[in-house]
Amino acid sequence: MTFDMNQIQRGARLRRSPFFEATQRHGAKAYTVYNHMLFPVCFGDLEEEYWHLLNHVTLWDVSVERQVEITGPDAFIFTDMLTPRDLSKCAVGQGKYVVITADDGGIINDPVLLRLAENHFWLALADSDVLLWARGVALNLGLRVEIKEPDVSPLQVQGPKAKEVMGALFGDPVLKLRYYYFLETRLDGIPVVVTRTGWTGEVGYEIYLRDGAKGDALWERIMQAGRAHHIRPTGPSDIRRVEAGILNWGADMTLENNVYEVGLERLVDRDKRAAYIGKDALQRIQSEGVRRKLAGIEIEGGRIEFNTSKWPVRTGGETVGRVTSAIYSPRLKKNIGYAMLPLAHAALGTSLRVEIPGVGERKATVVSMPFVDPDKEIPKA
Amino acid sequence: MTFDMNQIQRGARLRRSPFFEATQRHGAKAYTVYNHMLFPVCFGDLEEEYWHLLNHVTLWDVSVERQVEITGPDAFIFTDMLTPRDLSKCAVGQGKYVVITADDGGIINDPVLLRLAENHFWLALADSDVLLWARGVALNLGLRVEIKEPDVSPLQVQGPKAKEVMGALFGDPVLKLRYYYFLETRLDGIPVVVTRTGWTGEVGYEIYLRDGAKGDALWERIMQAGRAHHIRPTGPSDIRRVEAGILNWGADMTLENNVYEVGLERLVDRDKRAAYIGKDALQRIQSEGVRRKLAGIEIEGGRIEFNTSKWPVRTGGETVGRVTSAIYSPRLKKNIGYAMLPLAHAALGTSLRVEIPGVGERKATVVSMPFVDPDKEIPKA
Repeated sequence: MTFDMNQIQRGARLRRSPFFEATQRHGAKAYTVYNHMLFPVCFGDLEEEYWHLLNHVTLWDVSVERQVEITGPDAFIFTDMLTPRDLSKCAVGQGKYVVITADDGGIINDPVLLRLAENHFWLALADSDVLLWARGVALNLGLRVEIKEPDVSPLQVQGPKAKEVMGALFGDPVLKLRYYYFLETRLDGIPVVVTRTGWTGEVGYEIYLRDGAKGDALWERIMQAGRAHHIRPTGPSDIRRVEAGILNWGADMTLENNVYEVGLERLVDRDKRAAYIGKDALQRIQSEGVRRKLAGIEIEGGRIEFNTSKWPVRTGGETVGRVTSAIYSPRLKKNIGYAMLPLAHAALGTSLRVEIPGVGERKATVVSMPFVDPDKEIPKA
Repeated sequence: MTFDMNQIQRGARLRRSPFFEATQRHGAKAYTVYNHMLFPVCFGDLEEEYWHLLNHVTLWDVSVERQVEITGPDAFIFTDMLTPRDLSKCAVGQGKYVVITADDGGIINDPVLLRLAENHFWLALADSDVLLWARGVALNLGLRVEIKEPDVSPLQVQGPKAKEVMGALFGDPVLKLRYYYFLETRLDGIPVVVTRTGWTGEVGYEIYLRDGAKGDALWERIMQAGRAHHIRPTGPSDIRRVEAGILNWGADMTLENNVYEVGLERLVDRDKRAAYIGKDALQRIQSEGVRRKLAGIEIEGGRIEFNTSKWPVRTGGETVGRVTSAIYSPRLKKNIGYAMLPLAHAALGTSLRVEIPGVGERKATVVSMPFVDPDKEIPKA
């Protein structure tokens, strides 16, 4: 089934990235929609893009990671209220992977947070309107904060040769960045923030453009520096992120889930003193225990296509859970993914059946995650 | 440029409507994304669908109008705080077209609100996460409210023969509904709410399905009742809604706009006593006056394609505004639309230039709205 771009984009409701023209020029083949924006997800073939990410370096337009910027004299107090992570442990110049939690402990979003100053934060969002959440929360608090969407649009530079490209562009200071740290700099006068982060499990960086008018110039500058290292524009690799056990908000976790269900309990600082939204709920959930868990699964049989709906998981003829992500890993030569399962069916080695629409039932087994050992910075092909 | 469905839908992040299988079976050709869901926007040809809407009756899957449900002893007080409309004037069984406003007067969303009981409201949303806004606002208020997304999915039945179809399905009570009133009923045991509302300026109704498991049964029951009246599944008609002067949130208005800029001042009840979010800001804006206005425009020259970005509006070589929606009306035989313009360039009869990407500059003129006289069927809500 094919779609005409003028119809996906019907009208001017969906926003475009500062890199939109560049992605068109460089042959983006498919877009999805994320945070009300067009998101280029493929420039060629998904498996080719995956191998390129493993062996070379790739450039992604992830402007759809819209930012929420929090400033003002009470910005620290306010931002610290939004997440179970203890932001007093986040230095200026440091980032954190965080969850934004609702009062019932539900996961509103899982952004990368950057602390640009004592009272200056960015949240690089997954696909939900945290700007509205944060402004709603702030409304009756009496704190002195300003909350807005700044003109900031990230790119990702990911893959084993990312260091060479980033070194050529920014020199030593960027190469010395520790994981989840960042620096503010300029490239040919273009203001950017460079972070040592990414959505792959490979070596990777993000370059946050701070002037939407310079999208084209920044894109071409990176492509030029990357040419010697075979840089290639691609979409994010779902194969690689599932191998790494990385979750996708909206698919693998939603507002209906909490961190304990999806294995993100490391994002709760249990000794955090300050009050935060969802603290009571999370303490209760943690002490009572959860009834379901996101588990790693392997699905037997031939190569599957990436799931576009949440496939039923059955045991004894009864539907007990759902596959949230499932994809074929070309290097593992296995179908891997995650399923939300009742605890009784989530133990390692449990045998289940997965119903794949249009294919039929397949045998599946609960396995440990991640699927690729994260000890090595550059996992072997 | 074409897209593969498995890529727009990459992964299971985007939700599906309870009518998804039905829209596939009935040949949906194009989907966009709206409120994190797939939204079928075309089943054939947009102009054919427009004529069918004008002459017969059409069925739309608008499940993407996700609901926010507000209940609890303080539900009236809380919901009344979210909007400049005076909800004390909204009876149980009545709906209102409302804006949800931010503290600075910005338009967060423009839902249809239904009052199901003294303290029971639904908001049928445009494309932003009002669930997060409302839950954030409620957090520190101490009001006894529950705010959630219920299992409710609307369809629209629109066109001059809608009355015949709805009469056949529901009988007299539905035919007696006044504009923006509704009733709760069942169809073959399927629980629904039927409203006298729509996004067309034609005669129309919405049927809100209250049990997601019954999507297929409801869809086929409507198609069956409509067969004698040539009912046809279509997407919403942007041609018809622009003719009617109806705005599309995200394109024609955003969080950056207020009601006075976009001609929705009728949605502010100036004698409303109760406090509401944005009241001070709107009073200030109203007394100071706005600096820009959404104006009707006609664009000269041959038939244009529906704009997929906000086209620049120029005068004297300078870009002064943006076209938010522009489309060719087959019956008016004109290119019509809206542009956000500085007041100095928004007076009726003002001559402007519009830059159409890939086409070039065209002459345009500011005209009055709506483009089609709403004489017959559209009483003011």
